[in-house]
Amino acid sequence: MADVNDVDALMNEIGKRARAAARGLALAPTAAKDAALRAMAAEIRKATAEIIAENDKDVTEGRAKGLSGSFVDRLILNPARIEAMAQGLEDIAALPDPVGRVLSAWERPNGLKIERVATPLGVIGIIYESRPNVTADAGALCLKAGNAAILRGGSDALRSSSVIVAALRRGLASAGLPQDAVQLVPTPDRAAVGAMLTGLSGAIDVIVPRGGKSLVARVQTEARVPVFSHLEGICHVYVDKAADLDMAVAIVANAKMRRTGICGAAETLLVDRACAATHLAPIVAGLREKGCEIRASAEVLALVPDAVPATEEDWSTEYLDAIISVALVDGVDGAIAHIETYGSHHTEAIVTDDAATAERFLAEIDSAILLWNASTQFADGGEFGMGAEIGIATGKMHARGPVGVDQLVSFNYRVRGNGQTRPV
Amino acid sequence: MADVNDVDALMNEIGKRARAAARGLALAPTAAKDAALRAMAAEIRKATAEIIAENDKDVTEGRAKGLSGSFVDRLILNPARIEAMAQGLEDIAALPDPVGRVLSAWERPNGLKIERVATPLGVIGIIYESRPNVTADAGALCLKAGNAAILRGGSDALRSSSVIVAALRRGLASAGLPQDAVQLVPTPDRAAVGAMLTGLSGAIDVIVPRGGKSLVARVQTEARVPVFSHLEGICHVYVDKAADLDMAVAIVANAKMRRTGICGAAETLLVDRACAATHLAPIVAGLREKGCEIRASAEVLALVPDAVPATEEDWSTEYLDAIISVALVDGVDGAIAHIETYGSHHTEAIVTDDAATAERFLAEIDSAILLWNASTQFADGGEFGMGAEIGIATGKMHARGPVGVDQLVSFNYRVRGNGQTRPV
Repeated sequence: MADVNDVDALMNEIGKRARAAARGLALAPTAAKDAALRAMAAEIRKATAEIIAENDKDVTEGRAKGLSGSFVDRLILNPARIEAMAQGLEDIAALPDPVGRVLSAWERPNGLKIERVATPLGVIGIIYESRPNVTADAGALCLKAGNAAILRGGSDALRSSSVIVAALRRGLASAGLPQDAVQLVPTPDRAAVGAMLTGLSGAIDVIVPRGGKSLVARVQTEARVPVFSHLEGICHVYVDKAADLDMAVAIVANAKMRRTGICGAAETLLVDRACAATHLAPIVAGLREKGCEIRASAEVLALVPDAVPATEEDWSTEYLDAIISVALVDGVDGAIAHIETYGSHHTEAIVTDDAATAERFLAEIDSAILLWNASTQFADGGEFGMGAEIGIATGKMHARGPVGVDQLVSFNYRVRGNGQTRPV
Repeated sequence: MADVNDVDALMNEIGKRARAAARGLALAPTAAKDAALRAMAAEIRKATAEIIAENDKDVTEGRAKGLSGSFVDRLILNPARIEAMAQGLEDIAALPDPVGRVLSAWERPNGLKIERVATPLGVIGIIYESRPNVTADAGALCLKAGNAAILRGGSDALRSSSVIVAALRRGLASAGLPQDAVQLVPTPDRAAVGAMLTGLSGAIDVIVPRGGKSLVARVQTEARVPVFSHLEGICHVYVDKAADLDMAVAIVANAKMRRTGICGAAETLLVDRACAATHLAPIVAGLREKGCEIRASAEVLALVPDAVPATEEDWSTEYLDAIISVALVDGVDGAIAHIETYGSHHTEAIVTDDAATAERFLAEIDSAILLWNASTQFADGGEFGMGAEIGIATGKMHARGPVGVDQLVSFNYRVRGNGQTRPV
């Protein structure tokens, strides 16, 4: 391996190794991939003590640096979380293999038989936060779909991720698959991210960036390869005048407060002006009961005088915290206009008993996931029944919404003939 | 409209108009889009004399510039070609609307009903050659899929494309749809291509580049938006030792010589060393009978002494002409290795009577289209039964192979509940 301090040389070597591994993986039989995933789970369990020891160092350093409590919470590993990680690998082993699946098949009048068949993407570069569990999930999902993974996790979790990846690679080797199917970028140097975004001289087929505004900006200016964006979720709940009040209270509280740190958590509440007098106070009370801060538009402030005044910036802020911005809108048209202006095309929910209004909301908003009378926190591959996921894609190309193994593949056409030539 | 000489301002205005049109188009009913397509066909027919007059100017100027015969042939419009263009628009009107189609639907144990529904991509920028018929096809395909199109055709066809787009826009207006659904970049300035590749400040959702090596290079360095590459087709035919000789002769001749200027035309012939003695000479004779030049590897040259010696560059050259490069390989493994080294992941064919060998070729080569015992010239949306196409995508993301209306859409998830909240 190249010198960790020569980032360009290091990254190019990682790219070459990934590309070499990808060909073997693309042709690996399902049984070999599943055996590797189960072996990876076993190696993770065996390495529990070592993982916890290295994770302790990351956590201690993170606390000393003054990282926030929620940040540190996502960083911490304990035996239960490590067992969940191993179980996750076994769950991915149990999923159907997406590679080689015949997506459609038809025959032409000239006798040509055409099949559209799922194929691996190749080499996937994943740039993510300091969440060690993502290291195992992302590597395993890529492997299941026949792809090599280059993982670049947040630098505050580098020690934890290193021992996790070492365990994954032992599992690969024991199943006879190339260890370079899963590689971790071993340096915290931010230049490594830049190198990945250029594609490592053609070695990377697609980049999956997970993160907030600063990563968004960097990806937009620097990426030279296709991207499955997993960017911020500025998710909205719109409470229509035809909403059942109890349902609205429950959905808004769940959408915001069940977990505040996930991308499907609601960040803005929009209430129909026509029901503000009746619905706003109980919904706000429900949020506050769970400890939520209210950032209110001028109009909302008149009705909820002890709220914090919202600034223009609030409408495009992903808090990932117990804070919600609240505005009034003129019916579903006002909600759609607000969401199209400030949203991030992630997940939006409407609460209403009026089917026609709901169907307009579902049809007219250009977001990955739209829900009627359900919490935005269902924006999750597992909740969709798709198994494990890398995240929720916010772009419109190839993958959108939850990205699981079925989204980590491409396809090609296989045409079987008996001597057909094309007429002039 | 901004000053044609201030390319940045001009392109930004085009982007804004496209974005504004896209929202109306996304929600346009099928009947309105189909009425517009039929009106566009009628306007094209009415404008035949004007189109021919402007095309004459393009052709005269092109000939004076010394453009090649095949280039000029693709540029020329006559009444028959204009009628074919109008007919093409009507054919697109007759296709099913891809927008709003439910791609899959399922229900979760908690009662949530999930649908995956096709949605427009938004604004599509298409960069293509001096082929005026592409102007009508591309604009119409984008419209059918609910997208706004920004068309940047080759500058040698600018007059022809301008009158065609004017006719298309009259058709849009007469059907009550926004004229800016189809816009032509009105300047030959190459800076307009650069502006499109940056995405026009977020106004362009995807770029479709059609062209050869110089466009490839430019797209790779400059593109800041997702790309559906329609790049060169270095297509191979591999003749295996188990090939039926007559079939091999017919398929190779058709793959190379039916039309030499299309991306699915074969550029390299690979012959199994094990049958070179029996198969090479008749296949070469078949090609020469149709006027094809042979560029031969050293080994092939020993068997076909009057061939032109091939250089290393020949193996990665898309001739688009009556020239073929020919090499011997060691069976299907040798063919796969050659194609993975020199190919462009477009279309490859194998001729063999051995099913196991054929299945390896289909499974192990990472190209958009793989054919067994059929000509590479079937690489075409129409031949696949998909209707009109923008071209053959050579990338692996989102669209691959023929790109028709069903590939010019994205999708989202629409979830219908009755008050579900996510358990902790």
